[in-house]
Amino acid sequence: MSSVAPVQAAEVGEWAAETDVLVVGFGAAGASASIGAAAAGVAVHVVEAAGGWGGATVMAGGSLYLGGGTPVQKACGVEDTVEAMFAFLQAATGPDPDSAKLEVYCENSLEHFDWLVRCGVPFEAKLWTEPSWEAPTGYGLMYTGGENTYPFTEIAAPAPRGHVPHMTDKKPGERSAGWMLMSHLAETAEAAGARAHYDTRVRRLVVDGGRVVGAEVSRFGERSFVKARRGVVLSAGGFAANETMLAQHSPRLLGNFLVGTDGDDGTGIRLGQAVGAAVRHMDAGQTSFPADPALLYRSLLLDRRGQRFINEDSYAGRTGQAALFTQDRQIFLLYDEEANDEATASSGLPIEPTWVSDDLAELEGEMGLAPGALATTVGQYNAGAERGEDPVCHKSSRWVRPLRPPYGVLDLRGAQFGVFTTGGLHTSVRGEVLSLDGEPIPGLFAAGRTSSGIPAWGYCSGTSLGDSTFFGRRAGRTAAAT
Amino acid sequence: MSSVAPVQAAEVGEWAAETDVLVVGFGAAGASASIGAAAAGVAVHVVEAAGGWGGATVMAGGSLYLGGGTPVQKACGVEDTVEAMFAFLQAATGPDPDSAKLEVYCENSLEHFDWLVRCGVPFEAKLWTEPSWEAPTGYGLMYTGGENTYPFTEIAAPAPRGHVPHMTDKKPGERSAGWMLMSHLAETAEAAGARAHYDTRVRRLVVDGGRVVGAEVSRFGERSFVKARRGVVLSAGGFAANETMLAQHSPRLLGNFLVGTDGDDGTGIRLGQAVGAAVRHMDAGQTSFPADPALLYRSLLLDRRGQRFINEDSYAGRTGQAALFTQDRQIFLLYDEEANDEATASSGLPIEPTWVSDDLAELEGEMGLAPGALATTVGQYNAGAERGEDPVCHKSSRWVRPLRPPYGVLDLRGAQFGVFTTGGLHTSVRGEVLSLDGEPIPGLFAAGRTSSGIPAWGYCSGTSLGDSTFFGRRAGRTAAAT
Repeated sequence: MSSVAPVQAAEVGEWAAETDVLVVGFGAAGASASIGAAAAGVAVHVVEAAGGWGGATVMAGGSLYLGGGTPVQKACGVEDTVEAMFAFLQAATGPDPDSAKLEVYCENSLEHFDWLVRCGVPFEAKLWTEPSWEAPTGYGLMYTGGENTYPFTEIAAPAPRGHVPHMTDKKPGERSAGWMLMSHLAETAEAAGARAHYDTRVRRLVVDGGRVVGAEVSRFGERSFVKARRGVVLSAGGFAANETMLAQHSPRLLGNFLVGTDGDDGTGIRLGQAVGAAVRHMDAGQTSFPADPALLYRSLLLDRRGQRFINEDSYAGRTGQAALFTQDRQIFLLYDEEANDEATASSGLPIEPTWVSDDLAELEGEMGLAPGALATTVGQYNAGAERGEDPVCHKSSRWVRPLRPPYGVLDLRGAQFGVFTTGGLHTSVRGEVLSLDGEPIPGLFAAGRTSSGIPAWGYCSGTSLGDSTFFGRRAGRTAAAT
Repeated sequence: MSSVAPVQAAEVGEWAAETDVLVVGFGAAGASASIGAAAAGVAVHVVEAAGGWGGATVMAGGSLYLGGGTPVQKACGVEDTVEAMFAFLQAATGPDPDSAKLEVYCENSLEHFDWLVRCGVPFEAKLWTEPSWEAPTGYGLMYTGGENTYPFTEIAAPAPRGHVPHMTDKKPGERSAGWMLMSHLAETAEAAGARAHYDTRVRRLVVDGGRVVGAEVSRFGERSFVKARRGVVLSAGGFAANETMLAQHSPRLLGNFLVGTDGDDGTGIRLGQAVGAAVRHMDAGQTSFPADPALLYRSLLLDRRGQRFINEDSYAGRTGQAALFTQDRQIFLLYDEEANDEATASSGLPIEPTWVSDDLAELEGEMGLAPGALATTVGQYNAGAERGEDPVCHKSSRWVRPLRPPYGVLDLRGAQFGVFTTGGLHTSVRGEVLSLDGEPIPGLFAAGRTSSGIPAWGYCSGTSLGDSTFFGRRAGRTAAAT
């Protein structure tokens, strides 16, 4: 890995450029930081390693986790409160949720919704309630964290809080709602006066007596120094594209596929660490489940022993975390013909079972399970299902029905999960990067997946973009006011 | 937390003392580093925050993980090879085992055994094979990593490798074999010329152009600077006593009890990070199981759903990790009268069940399980046990027997685990501390639980003291040769 050891200001021969706030990375966090700083009337330059804005945001489903009674929630007839939103996220994003950030995030969620609307982000007031990774075009609100599933139904009044920007010409894998969100943020940032520089990487921070005063950048191999009079905002993504860092901090994420870009190489985090920043939860990662939720919810999710370990209607990212962090990805889906047909009808996706049989004993043999393992699990499940209950794992009665032959099994052992990292620099609610002593490092700010934030360990769809835009804007504002 | 930001050498007014190698912390790692450096003929000073040597080592069972055919193994008729030891540790200490360290550690294990003997550490050639936390007085070799249990029996030829220093006047909780080990190492260090300074804390490192050249220390509130011509070795323990760091890096370890001392406050790790060191696996921790292995092996270990999740005869530290990291400590032990009687006879410890009943359904009610959950689990287990097998979790046939009423249940939900941290500074096989760029930081070395080493994530008893003494000695040697 290239050196991130800081440069002393005295060693800088010449400053090639000067700005008030230098923003590193032009994804959702960097764009929001640029808007926050530029709105305060200071000069903002944003450097981006890629050839254009976007980062991982343009690949995302685009949902933003907002609540407490947004106009979209109200128009959909959904009741929500700041308190319920806080209680849910406090439970869902732990262990060690960032309570201080959750508090300001939930309390200011309506204001943040308005700000996004002012940035031109269009939302649609239509609720989607089928299990799927994303809402189809035309729907703008969905459950994205398992708020209406066990154990959260026992913790807080459920409400859907995933707000998806409206998009007319959605092209899956190409132009997502994340792209739509990002295009509005980038446009707003540039209209506010932020100047973007593409194909430009930050190599090292420049420090002067413990204060960050600029950065060394490189563009097509040429290095130069940029002075940042008020500060530098690190918003350069996570480290899911850096295998060395994954091995160091979260080896279970290795061997999966990256949800993000090559730019998620951890440089932003290392730049901060190199000037004394603390990190939090570097083992944490979001992990999408490698099967469609429409099938997952209707199946039994089994571990290597043929036992269930979670209610299958959990938020699929939570199920993914459980499968990856507690089961070493050694998992199967067991379902029946009716589940197969319903899931296909709902998702439009064909299902290709690994094995099909009327006989559970035969499937046990194929799966390498102990004799009787499936019969035990299915027997126990069906006994409850006859009464519409799942006393073992507490799946919602909507999805509970006895399984009948013929059965299908999807062997997901070794399947790759989509992953990105959520651990990063320790920051204050104002976006200041905190040192190993817990004090702000003068002149240094961070946001998005370069920092640890709302998705502290547990994850819900929309908390990464929600956190990136909310705390990105704050980091820019704080830097401008420095 | 007090500031660990480094001091520039130019800011040091006066050096109160000078040495070649400054060792920080006088536990097993610091003592071994002191011996390694002093044996090379350089001046060594070791500073220790407590009033005497020992650190966490004196509280440990004292076993050292050694193998490949040590004299003790041979005298016990145990066959072992370097290859089997490496293959086992490679599997048992992952994910992301430190293969480079494992290689030199296994290849030089016999030499390390001899060195320990030369340091005066007495070993006893008597094999102990009963399940227990420690071997009783008179026994000097035991299985300490589940080498003879699933899944490791399928990976490498099993051999006991936990070597316990002999001790005549053992007093549990007071004078352990760890104390015995430590007393010989401290004596050897001082005989070799290392000078110890107690009640002395290192506050900050002193750097000069990227090189560590000394440290600021404090003794009873008075601060002074110590110059270290060749380098500083950080061997100041882990961070299990620092709740802020536990929350940042491994929140699941919170709320347990510390295996270590107040000195395990993470200062050594933070001192390294503050001068640009990388860390590894800060989420990792050893977690002792909160029930006696003699009962655990003979019981069914159940999760919150009444299902088994691991072979109960696994190394109890591994079982502890599984319970803490994958089950949120929501666990029960289910056993019968015969298991109760055998375990009591073996361990000498009385067992106080939370509930006792002839009726599994009654116990299900007490435990808050789904109706039929225990009957299912016990039925499945007994079916295999009638044939002397455990096809579900692969417990060794030695411990497999159908359970018969009356049953006892130990409710371990909320029980505290003994924990210490194993994540720390990234070091080379020579004991050099590596930077965020992967390069040695000149003048800085680390060993023991201040560093990440043999117990990279998975743990076996004896790997912490084994790693601390082996790589501690190397760190001291490397520093002396600088």
